[in-house]
Amino acid sequence: MAKKFRGIFPALVTPFAGGTLSETVDLDAFKGNIGVLNSIGLSGYVVLGSTGECVSLTPGESLALLRTAKTAAAPGKLVIAGTGQESTLQTIEFTNAAARLGIDAALVRPPSYFKAKMSREALRRHYLAVADAAEVPVIVYNIPQNTGVTIDPSLVVELAAHPNIAGLKESSGSVSYLEEVVAHVPKDFSYLVGSGYVILPALVLGASGAILAVANAAPAQCVGIYELFQAGKIEDAARLQLGVAPLNKAVMDTASPGSNTPCAERARTAGSSGRRSSPSTTRDARISTPS
Amino acid sequence: MAKKFRGIFPALVTPFAGGTLSETVDLDAFKGNIGVLNSIGLSGYVVLGSTGECVSLTPGESLALLRTAKTAAAPGKLVIAGTGQESTLQTIEFTNAAARLGIDAALVRPPSYFKAKMSREALRRHYLAVADAAEVPVIVYNIPQNTGVTIDPSLVVELAAHPNIAGLKESSGSVSYLEEVVAHVPKDFSYLVGSGYVILPALVLGASGAILAVANAAPAQCVGIYELFQAGKIEDAARLQLGVAPLNKAVMDTASPGSNTPCAERARTAGSSGRRSSPSTTRDARISTPS
Amino acid sequence: MAKKFRGIFPALVTPFAGGTLSETVDLDAFKGNIGVLNSIGLSGYVVLGSTGECVSLTPGESLALLRTAKTAAAPGKLVIAGTGQESTLQTIEFTNAAARLGIDAALVRPPSYFKAKMSREALRRHYLAVADAAEVPVIVYNIPQNTGVTIDPSLVVELAAHPNIAGLKESSGSVSYLEEVVAHVPKDFSYLVGSGYVILPALVLGASGAILAVANAAPAQCVGIYELFQAGKIEDAARLQLGVAPLNKAVMDTASPGSNTPCAERARTAGSSGRRSSPSTTRDARISTPS
Amino acid sequence: MAKKFRGIFPALVTPFAGGTLSETVDLDAFKGNIGVLNSIGLSGYVVLGSTGECVSLTPGESLALLRTAKTAAAPGKLVIAGTGQESTLQTIEFTNAAARLGIDAALVRPPSYFKAKMSREALRRHYLAVADAAEVPVIVYNIPQNTGVTIDPSLVVELAAHPNIAGLKESSGSVSYLEEVVAHVPKDFSYLVGSGYVILPALVLGASGAILAVANAAPAQCVGIYELFQAGKIEDAARLQLGVAPLNKAVMDTASPGSNTPCAERARTAGSSGRRSSPSTTRDARISTPS
Repeated sequence: MAKKFRGIFPALVTPFAGGTLSETVDLDAFKGNIGVLNSIGLSGYVVLGSTGECVSLTPGESLALLRTAKTAAAPGKLVIAGTGQESTLQTIEFTNAAARLGIDAALVRPPSYFKAKMSREALRRHYLAVADAAEVPVIVYNIPQNTGVTIDPSLVVELAAHPNIAGLKESSGSVSYLEEVVAHVPKDFSYLVGSGYVILPALVLGASGAILAVANAAPAQCVGIYELFQAGKIEDAARLQLGVAPLNKAVMDTASPGSNTPCAERARTAGSSGRRSSPSTTRDARISTPS
Repeated sequence: MAKKFRGIFPALVTPFAGGTLSETVDLDAFKGNIGVLNSIGLSGYVVLGSTGECVSLTPGESLALLRTAKTAAAPGKLVIAGTGQESTLQTIEFTNAAARLGIDAALVRPPSYFKAKMSREALRRHYLAVADAAEVPVIVYNIPQNTGVTIDPSLVVELAAHPNIAGLKESSGSVSYLEEVVAHVPKDFSYLVGSGYVILPALVLGASGAILAVANAAPAQCVGIYELFQAGKIEDAARLQLGVAPLNKAVMDTASPGSNTPCAERARTAGSSGRRSSPSTTRDARISTPS
Repeated sequence: MAKKFRGIFPALVTPFAGGTLSETVDLDAFKGNIGVLNSIGLSGYVVLGSTGECVSLTPGESLALLRTAKTAAAPGKLVIAGTGQESTLQTIEFTNAAARLGIDAALVRPPSYFKAKMSREALRRHYLAVADAAEVPVIVYNIPQNTGVTIDPSLVVELAAHPNIAGLKESSGSVSYLEEVVAHVPKDFSYLVGSGYVILPALVLGASGAILAVANAAPAQCVGIYELFQAGKIEDAARLQLGVAPLNKAVMDTASPGSNTPCAERARTAGSSGRRSSPSTTRDARISTPS
Repeated sequence: MAKKFRGIFPALVTPFAGGTLSETVDLDAFKGNIGVLNSIGLSGYVVLGSTGECVSLTPGESLALLRTAKTAAAPGKLVIAGTGQESTLQTIEFTNAAARLGIDAALVRPPSYFKAKMSREALRRHYLAVADAAEVPVIVYNIPQNTGVTIDPSLVVELAAHPNIAGLKESSGSVSYLEEVVAHVPKDFSYLVGSGYVILPALVLGASGAILAVANAAPAQCVGIYELFQAGKIEDAARLQLGVAPLNKAVMDTASPGSNTPCAERARTAGSSGRRSSPSTTRDARISTPS
């Protein structure tokens, strides 16, 4: 059986509209962004990922974004939703609320506020309970730079045996992590790297694709790396990867990808006094010229 | 003007009831716990703190806990609510929803999922915006072990000049942090240490009190340290502090304070497969024999 | 039996002389510094500590410093030598070379270059082997900020049972670390705190003294904290402790204590192009006005 | 001009002989190891690297190892010596002592005991001073897992402009680090990856070779990855890379490469009570069956 999740997925930005302390999610801008991206060879979209600022959205806003994505995505594009919450029960409930909207998979980051309690065993039980109860395939999500929690590679291998755990998004970009997983998981388990620095190295070593913030800003280049790799043109792919690296750094260092919002203003999550979404910024947050 | 927040405050546990994957907040147990604690010389209660597992409660559950605490607390006991959220706007909205229930102060942890973006300037703007808009005094909350974000001591000193920022809860337990703050803030700024290991040292150097998880399990000892210090009996206070240290370690290492729940089962936040609140555990979560 | 190591010990600076790329240890300046310090109520001196830049001295320079200290120290002042090396065998050999010069104890930091290999068991075996073979009492040295290795408090308790392990220098300044040790070690085991921020809190909770970089720059204040504590004048001691804190911060942030050398020029260890010891700097490195 | 340092270099193990607390460097075993390795397509040898336990060797032992390596290495094999010390002056002196023995380059790790002082500027001045004075080309050495110091990629780019700085050994294995360096350095600057997990990814993105501990244990596989990459056989190289990963993990987790010494016994550096080199272990430390 072929892997279901392969190729390049942007972790979509959530656009906001409205003035100071009264900002709202801008579903029209979100729909417009997807419309622009539909013409590029992306495999689908990740909604409510870290890049989408899932942690500062209400459940209502979150589900509205999913509904919009399902409508706006071109036929054949997969829609993956970030659904992890700080408890097992809440994660299951929100995952299944998203499942009822027709998403293709749930991307589940670990609970992380109580870092010191997130032992291998606690994480194992969490993911197994979620996978048992979820009505869609689960993709485990390792992003220690945001969570302060590392899911051990050997635990991923163990979880990969569960019939409803379909893959991993791995955002630390560690090559050794990848090597400790890819050789030991079933053929249909999807390894999706989550760092724009490591697209090509991950593909060379057996990853099936990538979920990327930088794919909002540079979708064509990211798809290009994938397609050149598939065609065996490694040198060309490497040249493109080296070109994506500084874009990725700019995206990580400064702002929401796709916008020119400066770091200190970053979105609702950034302690920005809620002043992020001035009208001019909103215009910039739309993806108008895919590169 | 005297400091408003002094003495010992337990960071209250949130009890849960109900079986696997159907647990609910047990407001009766919560009320019962406060009833038991009312007879001890505590200065008040912190609801929705880290110990109270604020991050895995719905807004409805959170406000219900606050209402219960306001009703159950004996006259003269202050009620402080943890109100920090992942965005400035949400923090303000939830803080003022809590304010309307009559709380005495809001304890505001920083946004932390996007750790790398939480610069000194981003944190400064966040706290100033919250303090400007909040209808109750704000207590800044430094708890890097959970957030992965350290609020610089010099920023606390700067924030202390705001008329609506009344104090700091400092849970790292660092003595140098305390020293870099206490000598440089207004007389009526409350420094509340948030580590059960450091109660007496903090008081000796000028802290006004403590907010403590271990005060669920050992409220009388924590109050004893405070009262012996006030009476100038430093050696006796030191003996009591050394006795509280292993209790504090047990509370930190194992479970929700006040319960015998093992670590892997810890609460809704602990990746516990949602199975935390078996009936027998629920009974143990009630505080029946204050020490 | 009373603790042997109590009171305040400066971790002596090593002065250098000579021009660029030809600097040498300035034994005369070193002797002069001790002469100045002899008149203050210090318990003795630590030579070849971290502050003394032990890691960039040759064995010959190191032993010369010890000989000078033994000669220059006033009667009754103890001399403790930093003797830890990167292997067990070398540590034993250097410890016993120092022992033959008449030192009172060896301060032994753990091997640290291979951090990941320094398990509790590896450290246990190292310290027991050194203690078995050393011809002077051993003081265990925890300084994770420099070594990247933390000696577990429970290991210190275990090591304290060895008849030739006399104490601990603990430089992280953690109060919980102290509490996990002091209540569980023999009465004659010396707990010496190694952070100028924590002198008074440590004494209050049972430390016997302190080994301090800041005691080069502010020896009288450090001794004052100790003496006020002994006299039961806790409030006065606290005031002095809060006054020492910014001095300690300046010493940690900038330079070798006792000198006005800027950070980037710091000593031989500082990647300073070997240009540290210009004549004017050398003059400043002498302790002329003890405070 | 072509890069001078390309291909695979083992970071040679230092064998020890003799019983408890009397171990010595076993130059015969060292020579024998090189003899075995000479028949494989390695580019040369690194002596006194981290794997060679440089930090616990005396200057005399260190120079004897270099002399032996120069004699034992087959014609055309390069010899690189680890020469970094804790001060600039000592680094220069030891580098030039090694240079007089005819080494091809000096591998210079940064001073690291005073981590907090190793600013970008301090490191810049250190490396420029060493490069100015060194009589052989300098290879900068980034190994934060041992030093606790990260040399910023932008500093490496800056240092690469110095005519006597010939390359970098980068042992963190970070792909983003590599990408931030390789596109911005002169054509003849050698990027040598120092992690056995990342050989192929590094080559794909422009590294010139690798310095590897695992190349003691599996030299033929490491060379195989390099040769398959050169031949454009990326899939075969990836298969070999995935096979080397668990060997690399075993080498990192357990012992000196090439030996079966358990972790707790590891070498002189390991706090092993100096008992590392029992006769049976010594035999195992010889490389007899290159793979």
